[in-house]
Amino acid sequence: MRYERDNIKGMQAYVSGEQPEDKQAIKLNTNENPYPPAPEIQQVIANFDVEALRRYPPASADKFRDLAASLHAVERNNIIATRGGDELLRLLITTFVNPGETIAMTDPTYSLYPVLAQIQDCPVVMVPLNEDWSLPHNFARQVNEANCKLALLVNPHAPSGKLLSTDTLASIASELDCVLLIDEAYVDFIDVEYDSIPLIVEQDNIVVLRTLSKGYSLAGLRFGYGIGAESLIAPMLEKTRDSYNLDLLCQLIAEVAISSRDHAMENCRKVIVQRNILRESLLQLGFDCDASQANFVLATIPAGFGCSAQQLYEELRNRGIYIRYFPDPKLRNKVRISIGLPEENEKLIDSIKSLQRVRGK
Amino acid sequence: MRYERDNIKGMQAYVSGEQPEDKQAIKLNTNENPYPPAPEIQQVIANFDVEALRRYPPASADKFRDLAASLHAVERNNIIATRGGDELLRLLITTFVNPGETIAMTDPTYSLYPVLAQIQDCPVVMVPLNEDWSLPHNFARQVNEANCKLALLVNPHAPSGKLLSTDTLASIASELDCVLLIDEAYVDFIDVEYDSIPLIVEQDNIVVLRTLSKGYSLAGLRFGYGIGAESLIAPMLEKTRDSYNLDLLCQLIAEVAISSRDHAMENCRKVIVQRNILRESLLQLGFDCDASQANFVLATIPAGFGCSAQQLYEELRNRGIYIRYFPDPKLRNKVRISIGLPEENEKLIDSIKSLQRVRGK
Repeated sequence: MRYERDNIKGMQAYVSGEQPEDKQAIKLNTNENPYPPAPEIQQVIANFDVEALRRYPPASADKFRDLAASLHAVERNNIIATRGGDELLRLLITTFVNPGETIAMTDPTYSLYPVLAQIQDCPVVMVPLNEDWSLPHNFARQVNEANCKLALLVNPHAPSGKLLSTDTLASIASELDCVLLIDEAYVDFIDVEYDSIPLIVEQDNIVVLRTLSKGYSLAGLRFGYGIGAESLIAPMLEKTRDSYNLDLLCQLIAEVAISSRDHAMENCRKVIVQRNILRESLLQLGFDCDASQANFVLATIPAGFGCSAQQLYEELRNRGIYIRYFPDPKLRNKVRISIGLPEENEKLIDSIKSLQRVRGK
Repeated sequence: MRYERDNIKGMQAYVSGEQPEDKQAIKLNTNENPYPPAPEIQQVIANFDVEALRRYPPASADKFRDLAASLHAVERNNIIATRGGDELLRLLITTFVNPGETIAMTDPTYSLYPVLAQIQDCPVVMVPLNEDWSLPHNFARQVNEANCKLALLVNPHAPSGKLLSTDTLASIASELDCVLLIDEAYVDFIDVEYDSIPLIVEQDNIVVLRTLSKGYSLAGLRFGYGIGAESLIAPMLEKTRDSYNLDLLCQLIAEVAISSRDHAMENCRKVIVQRNILRESLLQLGFDCDASQANFVLATIPAGFGCSAQQLYEELRNRGIYIRYFPDPKLRNKVRISIGLPEENEKLIDSIKSLQRVRGK
């Protein structure tokens, strides 16, 4: 007998990027940071006494919340610490959206969003982006007309790397009748002026998502946080969150990581430099590749390249280089490439060149 | 404006036992293990290279699942690793119970259960236990008649420490029309014959919950797991679980902990010895105190003691000794005391004696 709810039985699971066993693989497929996390973290771990694990951890990660509040010039009660950004996304849905109510997102977007909506048995409104990945000017009206309870925007956008301005976000939020999540997983790689945090003070319907996975080189830690009006944060923090959602050791590491933000930002600057070099190389090879504000680029296979995006993904995979291909119709002739170390990016470009010679002749 | 769902707006948050800042406090209130975790864990942490945190962790904790499968003589696909037992409880509800469908539990039980039901907007059927904390013989029939989709039993029972036999569980599971969760958070403190794991092979509707929080002295780690038929485990593992729910470091620690099970079991034997000594002392002081199979005892304040259970809790708290008091009507004249170190238990008894002299005269 199968006991699952119908929506669970019928749903497709989320598919994350491949994690190859081979330690020599060049991994440019899951937007991990190629540079190591802050050395201070090694020290925290070295000094950690396991006896401390005997007791329950601080329930709400208040030390981390204070550090994050200070960084963003908000109050502790504007911050919730979560198990990666993913837990925050789930909490937004289970706290603010009843089963059967609608969730808005763009098409395309982070492919986890529709999966989380389906777990809560919520229909989804997908607002198609314009050709240049910009948001249709009537996005908020479309969301309101569909009576959505939550709108999810990833900014910089995934998988294009396109950035919405703070002004655009402010205008969307003020027009929306529902909660707006601004998923800033990639915010640390922005090299233009951008700061959405003041919006959470002006607007009571915005939650900003941050994560230590990308900018802080800590994807393995599973630590993120949300910033928003206390009226939005409190029910997630006090009611819908699993009590003790964050273990003691990850809290200590996250505290040191955010305190060593300068190290992380230095890494991000290196990634930005590499992003521009990689994009130039791809353009020279005839790929279409918009400027990106994230730690990846989205590249369109040139006409006459001799193989499809999926074939390019597979050929590179055979050579031990992992990039990301999405079967989505809007992305069928594109691949997403995470920014790696200089030598990794060069090997990628060399491999594409050699493929081009073989296939494109 | 408040955006929460009505069920979230109206619900009471879960209240966990107090975590005092004072490191000198005698903490007998949250069923933590008084003995330290396996020394091998310190070694794993000492050897850990933070660079490994740069990448996403193994998504399903397969190494841990293999170790747990081997320990319990089941297959990897019978195991799901979770962020404490709490995550497993949540997954059972979001996977198998639609909002509006009913969840069964006993009265009293682990006080988190009704909170989790309310987050999913599920009504609850509370089946009252008999006077001696035993289960009414028609428990399964009551659950079926209420058309429940999930029944939650904590065994050994919290907060009484009473154990249901494997035979009783087998007969309940075979009669039930729904999924049965057997929450074995305290299983490592049982000193009579008991093994429910073979039931998950015979029955396709049982999930057994285990945690490293109690028996393994790792409450601070937030690591638990579920054991059940593959048809029950798979949808939680592949669909409703947050992808990457467990960070790399906690996976490594959990692997070592379960591999060092002998150390944990030696600790548990010491707790059992202390449990019996503490119970004897309480009986001598006139408390009613049933034999417990968990790492706590439930003690009833004697008539003429001179103060209520709540007052006892508060008086002890003033002396830096933390025990647990529940405002539940069925538990109003009782306190739950976690088993501490020998000297902690002695201080507790001495404090109760001195209170008795002052108040009871």
